Order: sequence, then C-alpha cells, then structure tokens
Amino acid sequence: MAILGGTGPQGRGLARRFATGGLDVVLGSRSSQRAEDVAAELVADMGSSVSGSITGADNRLAAKAGEVVLVVVPWAGHAELLTSLREELAGKVVVDCVNPLGFDRRGPYALPVLEGSAAEQAQAVLPDSMVVAAFHHLSAVLLEDPRVTDLATDVLVLGDVTEAVETVIELAGVLPGVRGVYGGRLRNAHQAEALTANLIAINQRYRAHAGLRITDI
Amino acid sequence: MAILGGTGPQGRGLARRFATGGLDVVLGSRSSQRAEDVAAELVADMGSSVSGSITGADNRLAAKAGEVVLVVVPWAGHAELLTSLREELAGKVVVDCVNPLGFDRRGPYALPVLEGSAAEQAQAVLPDSMVVAAFHHLSAVLLEDPRVTDLATDVLVLGDVTEAVETVIELAGVLPGVRGVYGGRLRNAHQAEALTANLIAINQRYRAHAGLRITDI
Repeated sequence: MAILGGTGPQGRGLARRFATGGLDVVLGSRSSQRAEDVAAELVADMGSSVSGSITGADNRLAAKAGEVVLVVVPWAGHAELLTSLREELAGKVVVDCVNPLGFDRRGPYALPVLEGSAAEQAQAVLPDSMVVAAFHHLSAVLLEDPRVTDLATDVLVLGDVTEAVETVIELAGVLPGVRGVYGGRLRNAHQAEALTANLIAINQRYRAHAGLRITDI
Repeated sequence: MAILGGTGPQGRGLARRFATGGLDVVLGSRSSQRAEDVAAELVADMGSSVSGSITGADNRLAAKAGEVVLVVVPWAGHAELLTSLREELAGKVVVDCVNPLGFDRRGPYALPVLEGSAAEQAQAVLPDSMVVAAFHHLSAVLLEDPRVTDLATDVLVLGDVTEAVETVIELAGVLPGVRGVYGGRLRNAHQAEALTANLIAINQRYRAHAGLRITDI
C-alpha cells in the first residue's frame, strides 16, 4: 500500500500501524529525499516491531507502487496532486482521508467544497479510480504513540463500489482495536470529513484525543 | 420541558424517557387533541414507571409552557413553525433535534440548508432564544422500547451559549445510559445533523439501531 503525503503526523502514524500489522508501506511525499528520511526514521524507531516494510518515494512513484493508495495530503494541494496522478491511480482503490477544515479564533470549522467533499472531488478528478473515504477521525497522536496498543475506535468507510469498500474495511481492521464500519455512499462523505471539526472541539474541551465508536453493531 | 412536534416516534420516545427520569413533559403538536391523545396513551402504557408527568397541548401552548423546548418537527415545517413562535420562545433554551435529510432510491442524504444547518436556521428566526443542537442520533425504536434499559450512546450537544449547552448536557444525562458531550459551536451543527444519513445507511447495512460513542473522554 502507499500513503500520499505520508510524512506528516497522520501519514507517519498510519504507516507505523500498518507496517506493524504486516503490510508493506510506501510513504509518498513531494520530496523523495524527505520520504526516504522519514521512512528510515520510522523503521529505526520501531525496531523489531515492524513485520511489514516502510520505504519512501516521491508521490508519483508511491502512487504507482500501491495497489491501495491512501491520500493524506493537506486540503490545499488535494485537487492538484490527484489530478496530476490520474494515470498512476487508474484502476486502483484510492482512499481519501482528507478533512477540509478551516481554523479561526473561534476554533475549527468545515470548509465548503464545490464537489461536496474531498472524496467526491477525488472521484471527480480520478474517474478511472475507485475512491473510498475513510480514516478521517483517527488521532495522529494516538497513532504515533507506540505505548497505545489499542486505538479503541471505529473507522467509517464510505464508497459506492462494494469491493473497494470491503477492501478498506479489511484494511482498517489491521489497525489495533479498530473496526472498519460501512458508513454510507460517497455523497454522504462531507459530514464524515466535517465531523473532524467537532472532534477537535471535543479534544479542546475535554483535553482528549477523541474518536468514534458506532453502537449496536 | 416541552417537545414541539412531539407526537411522532422520536418525540414520543424522548417524552417517555424524560418522564421516566422524573421530568414533567408537555408534548406539542399542531392539533391539541392529537397531543392530548398521545400523552394519555403514553401515560397509560408506562403505568407506574412515570415519575414525571406527560401532558399534551398545541405547539404554541407547549412552547409557552416549557423552560427548555425541544424541536422535533419535520424539516419541511421547521422554519415556519419556529418563526411563528418567536415570542413564546424568547429567552428560552431551544434544543433543535431536526435532521434535514432527503431519501431517494440510493438511500438517505443530507439536504443543503441555506443557513448552514437546521440549528442555525432556528437561531436565525429566533434571535431572542438560546439555540442548542442535540439529540440527532438517538434511535426512536430504542427510545420507544421499554425493554431497552440502557441506550448506550452519547448525545452531541452543540451551541454558542455556555449555560444553555450545560443545561442540555445535563438534560441528556437524564436518559438511561446516555452522556451529553459538548460537540462544538453551532456553526459545526450541519455535520452532526447530516451524520444521521450515515447512521441510517449503517442501520440498513448492519440491521441495527446505530448510535455514537465518543472515545477517550
């Protein structure tokens, strides 16, 4: 699997957890040097707990390498990067994890998105890929903390292509203490992405790293 | 407390639970006869488990009666009803529980709302009230089922006025197995309301009555 924009806290945390779960992860970044450096740091830090591999590459090579490709880039560069990788991502499961949020003195808020959501924007610029929306609500702090052995949250997985959704539900289950839960069609991705603003507000009020569990399933 | 539009499944279920918790509930409806009938049915059905009272009235009298007023009306009549009750609701905590959703052959989806959300629309037409958004994700089926003694979910409570938010967090705690959790400012209410579409999709897929728990708090 590959993680585009994978050298930030969220990407590093996911790479750590997926590699610990036995997957081979290619971290992508605008700079291949940066990606290789971060991958090497992660491997060194994790030591014997890595049963999968973590390597680094530029985003284009990472997109080519992954069968499943996670998108963890900043919202600002989202459309541009994906548009440039249309060929590399054709035929693949592309998992959009991006939360289009703004921040001001009153805290976080959801940004309006012309296509409805980051995931729908991804599908619009990647018509030959199967876009799934997932991994919006995982705390990077918890992902990156090796002392946390149970993330104890669910991951909502949204999409319109059943086989792609099932692939990502299974992928989510690789994370310790995480269930992948089908969360609806892509047209309902906006509120899943935007809910991250609420979780940040919760974190601020309760000094927590809040996540979600779906009850009764 | 009062529940406007309280004779539907959601309103009946909330009335049942709040009365069981010792609160005096006035059910509001367009028809006072309908409200009185439903209130009488509930009281008869609940028997000795009611420690509070449930009575019925038209929406205007109910709005006058309640110190805290829940709004559980269909989205279609939301703006019109609240606009007509501006005077009755002045100075009060108005708890908007409405989810503006549409349904088509592909399932549920969030409707666009000019003001951003039902709760922001309520605040726009009720400038003299303290609007709080809450109780979006509770299953009416579970609320109405007396065999369910633990609802086992959290209620997100959103608002801009601290004292009103605290009042509603406390109110949520009256429901069995429910925590009221601060969920952000009113400008982040849209995604809380819209997330009900995702929960309905989850219910369809998993044959459940899904709810939310916030983790790590």
